[in-house]
Amino acid sequence: MAHLVSAAFVRNRGLFLPGLRAVREMSSQGGPTPPFSTLSISHPASMITHVELYRPEKRNAMNRAFWSEMVECFSQIAVDAECRVVVVSGAGKIFTAGIDLMDMSSDFIQPVGDDSARTSWNLRRLIAKYQETFSVIEKCPKPVVVAVHGACIGGGVDLITACDIRLCTQDAWFQVKEVDIGLAADVGTLQRLPSVIGSRSLVNELALTARKMYSDEAKTCGLVSRVFPDKEAMLAGALELAGEIAARSPVAVQGTKINLIYSRDHSVADSLDYMATWNMSMLQTQDVLKSAQAAIEKKSPKEVPFSKL
Amino acid sequence: MAHLVSAAFVRNRGLFLPGLRAVREMSSQGGPTPPFSTLSISHPASMITHVELYRPEKRNAMNRAFWSEMVECFSQIAVDAECRVVVVSGAGKIFTAGIDLMDMSSDFIQPVGDDSARTSWNLRRLIAKYQETFSVIEKCPKPVVVAVHGACIGGGVDLITACDIRLCTQDAWFQVKEVDIGLAADVGTLQRLPSVIGSRSLVNELALTARKMYSDEAKTCGLVSRVFPDKEAMLAGALELAGEIAARSPVAVQGTKINLIYSRDHSVADSLDYMATWNMSMLQTQDVLKSAQAAIEKKSPKEVPFSKL
Amino acid sequence: MAHLVSAAFVRNRGLFLPGLRAVREMSSQGGPTPPFSTLSISHPASMITHVELYRPEKRNAMNRAFWSEMVECFSQIAVDAECRVVVVSGAGKIFTAGIDLMDMSSDFIQPVGDDSARTSWNLRRLIAKYQETFSVIEKCPKPVVVAVHGACIGGGVDLITACDIRLCTQDAWFQVKEVDIGLAADVGTLQRLPSVIGSRSLVNELALTARKMYSDEAKTCGLVSRVFPDKEAMLAGALELAGEIAARSPVAVQGTKINLIYSRDHSVADSLDYMATWNMSMLQTQDVLKSAQAAIEKKSPKEVPFSKL
Amino acid sequence: MAHLVSAAFVRNRGLFLPGLRAVREMSSQGGPTPPFSTLSISHPASMITHVELYRPEKRNAMNRAFWSEMVECFSQIAVDAECRVVVVSGAGKIFTAGIDLMDMSSDFIQPVGDDSARTSWNLRRLIAKYQETFSVIEKCPKPVVVAVHGACIGGGVDLITACDIRLCTQDAWFQVKEVDIGLAADVGTLQRLPSVIGSRSLVNELALTARKMYSDEAKTCGLVSRVFPDKEAMLAGALELAGEIAARSPVAVQGTKINLIYSRDHSVADSLDYMATWNMSMLQTQDVLKSAQAAIEKKSPKEVPFSKL
Amino acid sequence: MAHLVSAAFVRNRGLFLPGLRAVREMSSQGGPTPPFSTLSISHPASMITHVELYRPEKRNAMNRAFWSEMVECFSQIAVDAECRVVVVSGAGKIFTAGIDLMDMSSDFIQPVGDDSARTSWNLRRLIAKYQETFSVIEKCPKPVVVAVHGACIGGGVDLITACDIRLCTQDAWFQVKEVDIGLAADVGTLQRLPSVIGSRSLVNELALTARKMYSDEAKTCGLVSRVFPDKEAMLAGALELAGEIAARSPVAVQGTKINLIYSRDHSVADSLDYMATWNMSMLQTQDVLKSAQAAIEKKSPKEVPFSKL
Amino acid sequence: MAHLVSAAFVRNRGLFLPGLRAVREMSSQGGPTPPFSTLSISHPASMITHVELYRPEKRNAMNRAFWSEMVECFSQIAVDAECRVVVVSGAGKIFTAGIDLMDMSSDFIQPVGDDSARTSWNLRRLIAKYQETFSVIEKCPKPVVVAVHGACIGGGVDLITACDIRLCTQDAWFQVKEVDIGLAADVGTLQRLPSVIGSRSLVNELALTARKMYSDEAKTCGLVSRVFPDKEAMLAGALELAGEIAARSPVAVQGTKINLIYSRDHSVADSLDYMATWNMSMLQTQDVLKSAQAAIEKKSPKEVPFSKL
Repeated sequence: MAHLVSAAFVRNRGLFLPGLRAVREMSSQGGPTPPFSTLSISHPASMITHVELYRPEKRNAMNRAFWSEMVECFSQIAVDAECRVVVVSGAGKIFTAGIDLMDMSSDFIQPVGDDSARTSWNLRRLIAKYQETFSVIEKCPKPVVVAVHGACIGGGVDLITACDIRLCTQDAWFQVKEVDIGLAADVGTLQRLPSVIGSRSLVNELALTARKMYSDEAKTCGLVSRVFPDKEAMLAGALELAGEIAARSPVAVQGTKINLIYSRDHSVADSLDYMATWNMSMLQTQDVLKSAQAAIEKKSPKEVPFSKL
Repeated sequence: MAHLVSAAFVRNRGLFLPGLRAVREMSSQGGPTPPFSTLSISHPASMITHVELYRPEKRNAMNRAFWSEMVECFSQIAVDAECRVVVVSGAGKIFTAGIDLMDMSSDFIQPVGDDSARTSWNLRRLIAKYQETFSVIEKCPKPVVVAVHGACIGGGVDLITACDIRLCTQDAWFQVKEVDIGLAADVGTLQRLPSVIGSRSLVNELALTARKMYSDEAKTCGLVSRVFPDKEAMLAGALELAGEIAARSPVAVQGTKINLIYSRDHSVADSLDYMATWNMSMLQTQDVLKSAQAAIEKKSPKEVPFSKL
Repeated sequence: MAHLVSAAFVRNRGLFLPGLRAVREMSSQGGPTPPFSTLSISHPASMITHVELYRPEKRNAMNRAFWSEMVECFSQIAVDAECRVVVVSGAGKIFTAGIDLMDMSSDFIQPVGDDSARTSWNLRRLIAKYQETFSVIEKCPKPVVVAVHGACIGGGVDLITACDIRLCTQDAWFQVKEVDIGLAADVGTLQRLPSVIGSRSLVNELALTARKMYSDEAKTCGLVSRVFPDKEAMLAGALELAGEIAARSPVAVQGTKINLIYSRDHSVADSLDYMATWNMSMLQTQDVLKSAQAAIEKKSPKEVPFSKL
Repeated sequence: MAHLVSAAFVRNRGLFLPGLRAVREMSSQGGPTPPFSTLSISHPASMITHVELYRPEKRNAMNRAFWSEMVECFSQIAVDAECRVVVVSGAGKIFTAGIDLMDMSSDFIQPVGDDSARTSWNLRRLIAKYQETFSVIEKCPKPVVVAVHGACIGGGVDLITACDIRLCTQDAWFQVKEVDIGLAADVGTLQRLPSVIGSRSLVNELALTARKMYSDEAKTCGLVSRVFPDKEAMLAGALELAGEIAARSPVAVQGTKINLIYSRDHSVADSLDYMATWNMSMLQTQDVLKSAQAAIEKKSPKEVPFSKL
Repeated sequence: MAHLVSAAFVRNRGLFLPGLRAVREMSSQGGPTPPFSTLSISHPASMITHVELYRPEKRNAMNRAFWSEMVECFSQIAVDAECRVVVVSGAGKIFTAGIDLMDMSSDFIQPVGDDSARTSWNLRRLIAKYQETFSVIEKCPKPVVVAVHGACIGGGVDLITACDIRLCTQDAWFQVKEVDIGLAADVGTLQRLPSVIGSRSLVNELALTARKMYSDEAKTCGLVSRVFPDKEAMLAGALELAGEIAARSPVAVQGTKINLIYSRDHSVADSLDYMATWNMSMLQTQDVLKSAQAAIEKKSPKEVPFSKL
Repeated sequence: MAHLVSAAFVRNRGLFLPGLRAVREMSSQGGPTPPFSTLSISHPASMITHVELYRPEKRNAMNRAFWSEMVECFSQIAVDAECRVVVVSGAGKIFTAGIDLMDMSSDFIQPVGDDSARTSWNLRRLIAKYQETFSVIEKCPKPVVVAVHGACIGGGVDLITACDIRLCTQDAWFQVKEVDIGLAADVGTLQRLPSVIGSRSLVNELALTARKMYSDEAKTCGLVSRVFPDKEAMLAGALELAGEIAARSPVAVQGTKINLIYSRDHSVADSLDYMATWNMSMLQTQDVLKSAQAAIEKKSPKEVPFSKL
């Protein structure tokens, strides 16, 4: 299947499209990119891949296909040397309504197994598989910027907490919805949200009551780093931010992402040791020399041609 | 002793008392609930237990009895199927003045032992016991909402950092008091506060200088998630919030609390694994079906009758 | 070399200099304190050591000497019974421009080794050594208050995240600069910043784009706990804060620092156990009695004469 | 209940009974010690407590009472200053047949709950409670020597892996029985056995096939440290070994046990740090001086009168 | 590709073949099982899958195909309900000569990348991929018995340390070969061997000197749990052992494997918690009832028909 | 001081001395190597450093000087490109009698401090310093072979458990002596011994009773990997073993040591990740090519000239 995706990538990879045109393409209504049925992939600018949740008529609800396609898509991006940064957004009126209960209910509401233990066994395998859908975002060494407009519900929060930088529009709201349907959120929110925002009291409140959080509170508590007036401005902002990242040494950028995630899960001493072991080879890149020279010559990183990674 | 407590519980468990009447009951001056001498237990609404620190004439200072009663009380609550959420507040003018130095001083100021090592041995056992007083709040799978008015000093901060959601009044202030009496805070603050609020610089400042922090700063830094104009409004808010939680599936709510605490202390990978292992059985609850059906029928979770847990 | 430093300490240790005079001394232009060539050490008040980055003509850029001198300086401070708290600031127009690329470039841009593996080996040893430069701040049991004015760039951010309390002036800005020169920050920022501030989205944005963050955002996100109008006011504030800390029991204060850092890297259960084991001896200090008595007599901690530690 | 136990202790605490008489008492057929119904407690020698599994007519099968009584018994021992070391053995023909399926089956074979999730909830609480039955042995700071004769089956292996030193008779055999009754061993064997013996291949084989391991293999693989010809010799040996431990400084001995268990679960760096923090107070014991003096005077530790702990 | 493998499985799955005939089939010279080119898959008995390294003419050296096929093979086995236990052995004269340097050298001896950092990047991805080749054995919940004859060199040791039970012939020898070709073993030996055998001194000696270890020492140190006179006897023994495991409840057996591996990497407290959370659902299997009933009726587990898992 | 040591190194570094002559030099009675007063340093063969505990008249008791000199010595060895492996042994009749109580007693028996807490503070610093004396052996990336004859008591066991490979003579015995002098062993034994040998029951017995363990049991339990008839044979064996290690690629050997120690303290998953990150640069060494070529040409590693490290 990999070569199909690859073909889709090539087909959609256009020339560099600066400014507004790029943003427009980002919101294009062209439909999902085959072989995907729920994702639209485009390349609004050099080295930037745009992944759009694309089931607008279903409020980008996460159906069975989506859970697999994300894994396929990000596995591909992880090794695509033409991509240095990813922007994720949602097509249509909202970012995502979360899990598509209609499509998925048989898995969770009528799980199968000869006895309760075997049903558990099957469920565990299923949950682990769905967790992987968002963990691939984290395992992908390229930074992922997510841009949320309208609503981001349930599984949507699981998704965005696995991304690196979160942006939203003024009209955006977020809801850890799972308790409302009788379950503890099990594909990432409870595991990642507490280290994403600064108030544990708020994390608990959101997860235990399923109340909505609006964009201003999302900004204050640190869930998003910026709020934009509308979707177009947000996508322009996301593209600009992505451009800043794409312009820098991929060795530096991807090493930074990997080590930031490492340090979340390890002690400072362990993380420093890992970092030293990482950089003992990565400092031997020519990018350091190129960057230093550019700095001396007062050039922007954007003018430096880095080798692919 | 357990049956006595149980009796106390039954005796105080009234009918559902909505709105203001419930709040009034929450601030009732009825005195401690036997067999407790420092805690007043009531049930302002269905499935909600209200634990009131009740030594108003001593500014709810934590005396010897208090340290044991909290353990007894929360151990009981942990297995009380009639309780799905707890509200903790303080009777009288302030939340708590912290440890009751008069009553406790012999333990810490004149510790005993045949030599310095044996004194240490005895002290370590004592500290571990007092740590347990607040750890029981965390081990209790029911969410605990704490509502602070007036002052919350020393041991009070240890207490509230072990709770799940923190609310306060406009006139509340918080003080990590321990350095002022010559010791490093040893029953929870130094261990939990850093993961409770978002600024490490602030945590250090508070703990190293014992300066007071007022409600507005407490809100900004994320220690509390909401500030209310006065105690009555706060208790009403706490009750409403507790009501939201109590209305939801206890399987979902308590699983959420347990996994949120788990993820604080483990890596994301470990926490996801634990979550999958947890939910492989918990997803088999009928609450998912009931909740999903209610959602389809546009009913509130409050209308869904969940089995006891 | 230790005795030289010690001599430098004694030479600069004056009498208690209250108020403005102390602040002035803190900004004195006397030059580096021998044997140091990049640090100026003074004692603006009793029990307070002031460490000033002192290469103002080079914007306090961190040269080869600096990386060693910090280790020597803080190792000395760690065992100096005359010091209970440290203030770190920068001489001249800005706090620090970060690493001195001119002086250091041979290490990192032209690393040596007979083959790529041996070059890696040498680089790892070097990185580990430079990491130690800031880890000593953390290992030093005395709290370190850092006061930033103007710019704090690259290595400067690594430095301040290893300090305990961060203050800045209105005109201060911060920049995680490393990606701009083609490398992942490897001496502390990526390891410590995420637990220092409350928004992971912001941490990632700063580290991946190298954008500047100004004082107001630094305050909002919790990087600094206070912003002052100018350097003089900030140093006065830092001195006052340091004075609050210095006035308290060193047993309490240093135990607090050690346990706060411990709890960052361990689970709450492990941290509580360590705390109990720590305090089983530390509670046997006479400082508790002295402090308690002072509290009863309504005296300030500043009036209590604690033994040296 | 504690005072009852205490009374039982006092009633059974005789004078020092050296040599064979002590051993005979250890195998006395006097029946369980009230208030216990499954344990016989005696004191064959000074500072030594002997806990005998006492349901010989049921092959010491672990019934409902047993699981509670062990917790009560070891909690008591943990704080009994008259006890410095514990010997555990089994009355009658074998050490233990493991869990008493007849008595316990309702708990595990017909667990209750309104739905599968609630049944899980109840089972988890139950398992955690039964795990505690053996974890108390580990939490008790006094070393526990276990002496196994005949068979040690299922729960018996869980029990002995939580003890500190294992001895057995020539005719002893061990069986990790749980897979034979359709479950993974969940009260300690799978968690502790791998760090108890040196061959992981053997651990896996034993746990996956439930085959019997005889005394010689138990010695070779390190499960037991000594094999004795018969029960009487073993009890004499256990008593002698216990005597060696009881004769030494309780500060040293109990600190050793605590730190050995700590180092099993932590990195060497963490364990060294904990050890230093532990001994900073424990080295201040007079036992060091007493022991050193005795060593100089060529006295045996047994002649040194240590204070109680 | 999965369906091809599946077809291969079905094609080779014969009826139950007891005793010698089964063993003979295990050593059959039929060649690799398509689509595999380096592995021969057969089913010598009900519920037992036999995976044979099958490049006898190349001493089962691990070539490029092998590293992928193992992942494919064990991923398939992990979800094959017809398999409850796996036996791994080698075709031809020895178990394996380790990595096929001729086939693999371009990867490691001439790695590619535009600069040293990019070469490192590519190598890290490659190493991680090859580590997965053996980690799949551990992730597969079915126990894996490995039977070694002749030589087991380099990568072979990485392979067998990831298996659960190790058997060997009298003529077998083992060699941690990597230092001889200038590298630290990086696909599992250094990570797993220390917890597999009981003497760290021996582990270090083997890994640092690449000396051969013969079967008797392998038995003494616990690397293997049994030594057989020749390959035929060993395969018969492996089959019998596998039969014992296959006869037991797959819920019990696979839960045992998963929790044994979990406890290797976590503290005892964490492992007990995980175990309780695991068994809260797994104890609800009908296998417990079936097994208990069989035990009462004195039947062998082999006579109990367990549902598939 | 470093240059003095360096000079000492150069002065003693002779030509390659094969066979017996080398061994004789190893037991030379030349006295300590200045500036050391307790250690004799020599170079019996190319790339091998011999560190001899040298206070034979005091049974190599560890006095105050020893604790510092070990740190100095191994810090030097860690960066000495002429050394690839270290042999440690003891001069005179026994390996070591452990801590020199006469010389050290003031530190531990009469510790100082204004109150018990301050005494603790000072003791903790002291213990941490003494722990470092043996941790340097572990931090030194060159493998350390220790050869024990006669007695190895107390601190001696702490020392040898920090070494990589342990050898002993037939007449050697080992004693974890600390409980005999009233303290829990605090400089490494309790932390490292459990992962060094395979029987936890034995570890506990040794540490709790201070009984002697003789060479045969030391071999059986895995503490030593070989036993030699006498000291001369042992030193010849140690030299030969060291020669095997010294002949191999230092990149491979030292990477092996570092990763073996890493994996002791981390999960397998973490250790594999670290290993991949380590080898991404180390595989780029020319040693792999050289070694592979030598293997093809049937040459011994000893004939391959590796660059220094």
